[in-house]
Order: sequence, then C-alpha cells, then structure tokens
Amino acid sequence: MSDNNIILGANQYGKAEVRLVKITRDTDRHEIEDLNVTSQLRGDFQAAHLDGDNGHVVPTDTQKNTVYGFARDGVGSPEAFLLRLGAHFTSEFDWVTGGRWAAEQYAWNRIQANGKEHDHSFVKSNQEVRTAVVVKDGESTHVLAGLKDLTVLKSTQSGFSGFPVDKFTTLAETSDRILATDVAARWRFNADAISAEFDFNASYESVKSLLLEGFTEGFSHALQTTLFEMGTKVLQAHPEIDEMKFSMPNKHHFLVDLSPFGQDNPNEVFFAADRPYGLIEATVTRDNASDAGNVWEGVAGFC
Amino acid sequence: MSDNNIILGANQYGKAEVRLVKITRDTDRHEIEDLNVTSQLRGDFQAAHLDGDNGHVVPTDTQKNTVYGFARDGVGSPEAFLLRLGAHFTSEFDWVTGGRWAAEQYAWNRIQANGKEHDHSFVKSNQEVRTAVVVKDGESTHVLAGLKDLTVLKSTQSGFSGFPVDKFTTLAETSDRILATDVAARWRFNADAISAEFDFNASYESVKSLLLEGFTEGFSHALQTTLFEMGTKVLQAHPEIDEMKFSMPNKHHFLVDLSPFGQDNPNEVFFAADRPYGLIEATVTRDNASDAGNVWEGVAGFC
Amino acid sequence: MSDNNIILGANQYGKAEVRLVKITRDTDRHEIEDLNVTSQLRGDFQAAHLDGDNGHVVPTDTQKNTVYGFARDGVGSPEAFLLRLGAHFTSEFDWVTGGRWAAEQYAWNRIQANGKEHDHSFVKSNQEVRTAVVVKDGESTHVLAGLKDLTVLKSTQSGFSGFPVDKFTTLAETSDRILATDVAARWRFNADAISAEFDFNASYESVKSLLLEGFTEGFSHALQTTLFEMGTKVLQAHPEIDEMKFSMPNKHHFLVDLSPFGQDNPNEVFFAADRPYGLIEATVTRDNASDAGNVWEGVAGFC
Amino acid sequence: MSDNNIILGANQYGKAEVRLVKITRDTDRHEIEDLNVTSQLRGDFQAAHLDGDNGHVVPTDTQKNTVYGFARDGVGSPEAFLLRLGAHFTSEFDWVTGGRWAAEQYAWNRIQANGKEHDHSFVKSNQEVRTAVVVKDGESTHVLAGLKDLTVLKSTQSGFSGFPVDKFTTLAETSDRILATDVAARWRFNADAISAEFDFNASYESVKSLLLEGFTEGFSHALQTTLFEMGTKVLQAHPEIDEMKFSMPNKHHFLVDLSPFGQDNPNEVFFAADRPYGLIEATVTRDNASDAGNVWEGVAGFC
Repeated sequence: MSDNNIILGANQYGKAEVRLVKITRDTDRHEIEDLNVTSQLRGDFQAAHLDGDNGHVVPTDTQKNTVYGFARDGVGSPEAFLLRLGAHFTSEFDWVTGGRWAAEQYAWNRIQANGKEHDHSFVKSNQEVRTAVVVKDGESTHVLAGLKDLTVLKSTQSGFSGFPVDKFTTLAETSDRILATDVAARWRFNADAISAEFDFNASYESVKSLLLEGFTEGFSHALQTTLFEMGTKVLQAHPEIDEMKFSMPNKHHFLVDLSPFGQDNPNEVFFAADRPYGLIEATVTRDNASDAGNVWEGVAGFC
Repeated sequence: MSDNNIILGANQYGKAEVRLVKITRDTDRHEIEDLNVTSQLRGDFQAAHLDGDNGHVVPTDTQKNTVYGFARDGVGSPEAFLLRLGAHFTSEFDWVTGGRWAAEQYAWNRIQANGKEHDHSFVKSNQEVRTAVVVKDGESTHVLAGLKDLTVLKSTQSGFSGFPVDKFTTLAETSDRILATDVAARWRFNADAISAEFDFNASYESVKSLLLEGFTEGFSHALQTTLFEMGTKVLQAHPEIDEMKFSMPNKHHFLVDLSPFGQDNPNEVFFAADRPYGLIEATVTRDNASDAGNVWEGVAGFC
Repeated sequence: MSDNNIILGANQYGKAEVRLVKITRDTDRHEIEDLNVTSQLRGDFQAAHLDGDNGHVVPTDTQKNTVYGFARDGVGSPEAFLLRLGAHFTSEFDWVTGGRWAAEQYAWNRIQANGKEHDHSFVKSNQEVRTAVVVKDGESTHVLAGLKDLTVLKSTQSGFSGFPVDKFTTLAETSDRILATDVAARWRFNADAISAEFDFNASYESVKSLLLEGFTEGFSHALQTTLFEMGTKVLQAHPEIDEMKFSMPNKHHFLVDLSPFGQDNPNEVFFAADRPYGLIEATVTRDNASDAGNVWEGVAGFC
Repeated sequence: MSDNNIILGANQYGKAEVRLVKITRDTDRHEIEDLNVTSQLRGDFQAAHLDGDNGHVVPTDTQKNTVYGFARDGVGSPEAFLLRLGAHFTSEFDWVTGGRWAAEQYAWNRIQANGKEHDHSFVKSNQEVRTAVVVKDGESTHVLAGLKDLTVLKSTQSGFSGFPVDKFTTLAETSDRILATDVAARWRFNADAISAEFDFNASYESVKSLLLEGFTEGFSHALQTTLFEMGTKVLQAHPEIDEMKFSMPNKHHFLVDLSPFGQDNPNEVFFAADRPYGLIEATVTRDNASDAGNVWEGVAGFC
C-alpha cells in the first residue's frame, strides 16, 4: 500500500486525559488526589501502522484500566505515580521499549466550616495546575516537574527601556508599568531525584514558593530578567534540578488615556489586553547539566 | 423596509467585557481591583433599528470610556461601581430610561515573599469568580450579587435513594458517594442594601463562607437538599437578601470497577466524568420577598 | 431546618449535555445526527428540597436513558425530538407538570472522495451550531429554534455616524468600516408550527439562508439596523414564526495606523480585537404575536 | 546575581497571536485573509536575561508592527508571509540569527445571496484551522504546513481486534464501530518548495483533499493503519513533502446498551465521550528525507 521508500518514523500512542480522583479514607480525615493522566507507549508498532496487525497494540483501554488499578495502591505524587506506570508497561510487554507518561494535578483545600478545617469537604484551589512528565527510552528515564497558569502581577518596579529602534518601532520607553504573566515552567531532575525515596511533593512546594518570591524581587528591566532570576533562585536551592524551561506571556496592561475626559491617570487605571501578548521563553540551566535525552520533545511552548 | 405589523420588541445594547484593572497606590502598599464590566442601555432606540438614525445611539465606545473614567475615582465594590454607572447613563441621556450593568471580579492575593505579604506583588486566586448585576428600569433599581465556578466536593456523607423507577431506570441506590459541584449562585438584595452606605464586600465574604459551610453540613440525600440548606443558611443570616438562585451541576464521580483486576474499591478510586452531568436549579426565597421586576431575565442557567 | 418564612421558589432539574450520535443505516448510504441534549423537569419537587425525600425525583440518569431510548426510533429534527421527550415526561409522571428540553445540533457533510460523496464518511461542518428549546408548562407548549456562532463579515458598506457626543466620547465617525458579528438568534413558533407534521429542518435551512442574505443587503448604518433587517426578512417569509431575538457582538476590526512606517492603509490592514466588543440585543416581533409564556426565561444573552 | 555555573540555555521571544485581517479590494470583489501570527526571535539575548540590558531586545511591539506593515503588501499564503518576516528580522538585526514564525489561518466563504456569491460579504468556515511554521537557524530554513481540528467520522468499516491481553484488559473485540478523530497534521517541505515561486495554497488544498479521501478508504483495523494510509497518500502525490506528523485522538463513540429498555441497538445509537480518548501520534516519512533540523521542537502533541 505504500511506496517502497515511505516508512514509519517516530510514533507513540495511548490513552489521554484519564480523569482520576483518589480518596484516601484510612481515617475520618480524608485526603484527595485529583489528576488527569496520559499514558503513551513507544516501541515496535510497525505492524499496526503498515499491516493492520494489532498483535502489539496494547489497547488504550487497557492503559486506562492500568491507571485506575495502580491508583488503588495510592498516588503519592504525580511523578512517583508516572514512574510506576512507566516501569510497569516497559516490563510487562517485550516490545514496549519506552513511552511518555504525563499528568496534571489539581489542588484542593479543606473547607473552613465552623472555625475549623473540615474532614471530608474540599474546595478546589485553581491557583495553578501542577504538571509532571516521565519519559523512558531503553535504559534512560527522565522526569520533568512543572506548573502552569500561575498568574502573577507586579503593580510597580517594572520598566522597559534601552531597546533598539528601527522603522517599525513606535513603542515609548517606560520606567513604571504593570508586569503580569502566567507562569508556565518545567524543571528537569537529575539522578539524585529519580528514586523511590525522593519527596517530589515537598520539592514542588519549595519550587513554587521560590518562583513566586523570585517574581517579587528587584526592579524588572524586562520579563527576561525576571525569568532568569526566578530560575536561578530555584537552581541555587535545589541541587537535584539541572534545568528549568519557562514559557511566559507578557500580559499587557495598557494605561488608559483619560486626558480627553479631563482626568489624570498616574498608573491607576489600566486596560488588560488579551491579544497579542509578548511571549518569553527561555532555559535556565547548569553548565554541567546532565543529558536531557529527548524529554523536552513534544512539550508545548518551549524551545 | 418592514411589514406594517413587524415591530421592534425589547432591546438593549452596549459594550461587553471591558477589562479594567485598577491599582490604588496611595501608599506603598498597593491594592488591586480586577473586573470585567459590561454596560447595556435600554430606552428609546427605535430610530436606530428602523431608520438607520443614530441620534440616540450613545456609542458603545463611549460606554467603555465611561467605565474607565469612573474607575479613576475608585471601584469600591462591583455592585457600588455598577450603581454609579447606571445612575450616570440614565441621568445623562434623556432617552436612556434604564439598562443592565454587569461585572465579574477576579480576586488576587498578596504573594508571600521572605515571610511576609508583599506590597505590590500579587498572585491570582481563581478559586471562584464574583459576579454582580444592576438593572434599572424607570424608577426601579435591582441589584444581584453572586459567584460562579466555586468547585466543592464531599468525599462521603452523600447518597441517593428512594427515587421512582420506570422502564428507563437502571440507576442503583447508593448510601455513600462523592458529591461534587461548581457552585453558581446569585442573590437579590432588598431595599435595605441598595444604598451608598452598604458594605457589599463584607456581605459577599460572609455569603461565600456560609455557602461553603452549608455545603459541608449534614448528610446529603440529593444535591437538591444541600442546595436548599445552603440558601437557607444565607437568608437566615442576611436580612438584606430576599432571594437566591442556584444553578449547580451534579459532577458525577463514578466508582471504578476494579474487580476484573482482582482488586476491591471501597470508595477510593473514581472516574471524574465530564458530560453528561446532573443540573440542579432552584430558588430559595422569602414568602414576603420584594418584587424582583425583570432583574432575572437574561441571567443564564436560572429558571 | 428552615426559617418559617423561607420557601422554595421556581426550580427545575435534570441531565445536561447528553451527547447523542444517531446513525441511520437502513441503506448503505448512512445518515448522521449529532446532538447535545438537556432535559429538565418542573413540577412538585418540594419534598426533595426540604425533606430529603426523593420519591418524586426522577433520576437524572433515567432522563439520560430516556434520551437514548427515544433516539432508537430516530431523531428527525431537534425540535420534534424535544417535543416527544416533553410529552413523555409530563405524561409518565403525575407530578411532572412541565419542563425545559434543549438541544444543540452539529452539522456534518459527506466527504468528497474520488469525485463523489462518500456513503459513510463525514466531515464536521462547524459553520454554526443549531439550537432548539421546548418549554412545557401545564397545557402550554412553546418551541424556540435558533442558531449561534455563525460568524459573518462585510468588508465595506458599513459605517457609523450621527451619534450623540458627551464628555466621554472620543470615537470618530466613519463611512467605511468592517462589520463583523457572530450571529446568535432564536425564533419562536406560533401554533401553526407546533405539530407533528411541521418540517422544522426545512424551516431552519430557510431561516439561516435569509439571515445570511439579510446580512449582505444595503448599507449598514449600525449593527442595529442590520439586525432589524435580518429579522424582518425572516418574519416576512415565515408566517409560522412570531418573534426573533438576536444577541450579536460587534466584533471590532480596527484599521492599523501604518503611517509611522511610511505606508498608507486604505481599509486593507485590520487588527481584529477580542475584548471589549459591542453587544447588540434586540427582538423583532409581530404586533399581534402570540403569548410567549415564560419560554424566554433562562435563555442567555437575550433581554 | 547567579551562581557561576548557572547559565542561559536555549531561548526565544516575541509577540504571539497578532490577529491580522487583510482585505484586498483592488476590485469590487474583495478578498479576505484572516490570520493569527506569532513572531519569535533567536540569537544573542544573553545581556537581557543576565544583566537587564535591553540593547538587543527588538521590542515585541515592533515585531507586531512589522507583521502589520508587511501585510500592507499582501499575505499570499501563510508560509510565504512567514518566510518574508523571517528574512526581514534575520537581516535587519545582526544579533538575530534565527527565529520561529508561526501562523494560523481561518477560511471564509462568500455568502450566497439572491442566487450568487456576494462580492464583499463572507461567512467563516470553521471546518479546520490551517497552520504554518517557519524556523530559521543560521543558513537553514525549514517550513511546516499543517491543519488541525478537522473532525471526521466513519460510521462503519472500522474495527479493532487481535490485540494483546493482560490482567488489566477488559476491552471486547469489535468488527464494526464508529471511527472518529480530529485530524491534526503537519508536513515538512524539502528544498523543492522553499522558494518564492511555490504555490503553498494549491499544495494545501490538495493535501487536505487527500487526507479526507485517505480517511474514507478501506477497512480501518486501527486508527494507526488509517493514519499511515493518509500520510502515504500525501507523500506519494507530493514530492515536495518529505515528512508528515499526525496527532489524532481516537474519539470514542460507545454503543448505548438499550436492552434494559427492551430495545436492540444495531450500531445506531451512540454516546460520544469526551475524556479519556485514545491518542495516536506517528510520523510518515521518506527513507531519504532531508534533515529536519530542530523544526519539530516545540510543536505540541508530536513525538
């Protein structure tokens, strides 16, 4: 059916967006873990594509079932859960030589009722979405932790000046503006972290705090500077992280010209624009970072 | 151009989704107010529709400008801000006899940095969206406060049984399930609140807390019962509120059957479904509630 | 549990967004009908809200099952299908005295393959979404047909001038601009149409064509004028329709100022803005229109 | 400010989602081109990240202006337009050694009015979104064309059987099911196409037709087989294309069990599920394909 020089290239397949809610109810004080899990397998799937032979095609339905079956024994952290899934599929099926497992996790807080935290009632946080990726390829295993949709804003201590000017430049310099972005970041662990013992949850909370703190500090000459400071702060505190990638929109807040109405506007009233927006993407890394393999492929929005 | 029996009926027009960010910077400790404002005018606009005569058509661009101009003097609360806008348009233009002004407000928290709340750096909350509507019609003015997208979940103390059965019924009774919903509620103030002095922000925080607390309490025989308890709790505590309407999905969490894999599942592992979902809408009101006029028209998802 | 003056007001409940795909395969040339159906019941549900007694609560799961069971006998048109559902629920259960049934329908075209339309392969159209609503209340039955997300644009023959000016007005008059909108319209049938024999599909196609044609005609002095012409065109041709409501954004296309770059811009290069947008809502009706009952309640975006 | 071993890695920045509508009005029969353009520059931007020195930071606002300025001379095709933008930025600024330019294009059809196609009135198609990417890196230039959100469905001639079974497998084999997907595909041109003369629009229309036709043909043993056939069909007909990548969900349509209601269901009534879904990603390529450089990096959803 195909030309003799048309061949199958890189491929992966599986089940996407398996919505898993795990309640741990060992005591009356329940715990909730809320995830969206994707499992994709890589290996020898040529016959399925070229010959209609499904002998190697572990059904995506089976991958979904496996996610739920494994959750019965607990999730723990998205990274640890994906590592367990990856180890299972690559050992269970000879021809599965690797794969990509990804998850989003959504945080819930206990509801405050009658002055105390409730045992089994929760309200969704939505402050940010936690992300995790595990990629296995033969003997190598890579882990990315991350977050997205963490929206932050500084109402001063930000400017933009000293930029080059050409015939298409109309932007004015400014020494006081709003800086706002939706932080999306992914960070790659080195071998120190990729073990059953590592506390991915504590690491996540620390990184998130450092990103927020880094955003507040200093005068921002451009979102690029702030991004680099945020990444540096994390890498300095976390030796188990070798590399961070950021993809951050510059969410423009334009000062409204109120002078036609006889009003001043000393950086008080802004129009928050949707599109277009600046888009700043960069990697903060160590000069001796471990090899990343192909873990960054297919990660949207990062170069 | 029209048949002699084809006429213009009810109509309104204006500018929708004016994205306003107001920074108050009287001191180094800045405040942020983040709103999405819609202004629509009602009155004598027949000539615009039938004759192409724009003599009465206050431009939607002017309505947008007015939002920004008014924000220069502060927002305060969405309800108070919309009341000011409504009073302006109905007094400024003879033929504008009423209108509908609506807003969403987004909450921001101060970033915790180096152990304290930062003065001018904020992180968006996203826990829920606050809503407000003001409708003016001649001498009458109505105000709705509200919220939406407040996602809550109880991991036990919920069941559903005793329902009628017909030929299409396959649902099994349950005495222990997850109950989850996105709370959308609107509440209507009576004359006690519609004044310049009323503290809409404090009222909002109290209502939100009561809704959360009400959700936690008791055994839920159905989302209907929980809804009515939530509304009752608010009306008992807030004499200035005459009526609440709720529109709440029953977000199904289905227990996964793990028995084919040789596992039990004592209400621990759930599939969170997207569609279809239950949809429960009801009004909790006082038997002596003031007249609502037409304030509820055009409010999506409420009967 | 409730104050003696706190009572249950208007309410309805059911199953929302039941995704139904019906394949008719009587011959090798298959037909596809793709709908998103919502069923909500009204009647005596006080005990469920106040007493936790579910004896009247026809499960939302049963309502979903009924949608699928009824689809086995064919859909035909969304309006006819909803009428059948409404008749069933109000006759099957004594305490169900009315309800609201709504649907979206998505169009599919046959794929052109090897020069002809394929028998069982389809491509989704997405040009617009068709909508339908049936409301029953005791003996009365109302039917709304409609569409949404039909995006249209005129690149000339549109202007806006002659508007009133106040202190907040900065808009310039224009005699040549882009006019663009997403048409959302609902139309209400009178008794001529509410019968088993009426061809709702043919009526829908005719109305859609007339709306598109109406949009093209004449010089648009404002979106209001164009809206009224579109509605008039439909009512003149369709005596079975008594009333149309429109909710249409004015999707602004701003001419880009290229003069700083030494270029002219004779209405050729535009920035298509997202927010804010104009929002024009109006009713075109007959002076002797039949009574609408409460069919328009809860229909978003229409006054 | 940074550790001496923390460095800047790969980075790019620019303006995203510049919404451009270009009207060509040389004659009364207008033409419309509707795009969403993103421009990102790569090169020497170290000082901006590490030192707050913006001397090299061509403002994202300037990049936006350039998009509009270049559009004054026409768009032609998204690929040709992006090639022009890329050539400009890499020649205008010494330190800009490459970049990534991307676009979506939205199709419009002329409105049929009074029996003929209207000269200046259009209705948006929405059938699919056309995509284009240009990546420049020093002397190399790569071009990807593509499409997404092209939703197709076969109501028969699809099955899934012969798959491996393990302890987590519960799926039954089937020889007749619905096959539905949203086609997302990107294809990479070789040097034959990357010239000012190549007709990217004609190529696009041909590829789209072949993808649709390929979807219809034969019995689908799995989405993998159908995907490979679609890609092969394109590569056989288009020697200027070296490689295609697909990312296609398997949109499950589950046969509803109507037997509890005493009804059969011979593949007529289906529940269209949202999540989870299968996700099939694969590359169809030539064994002698030209080098892809890094053009596939950052392209979401492709391995």
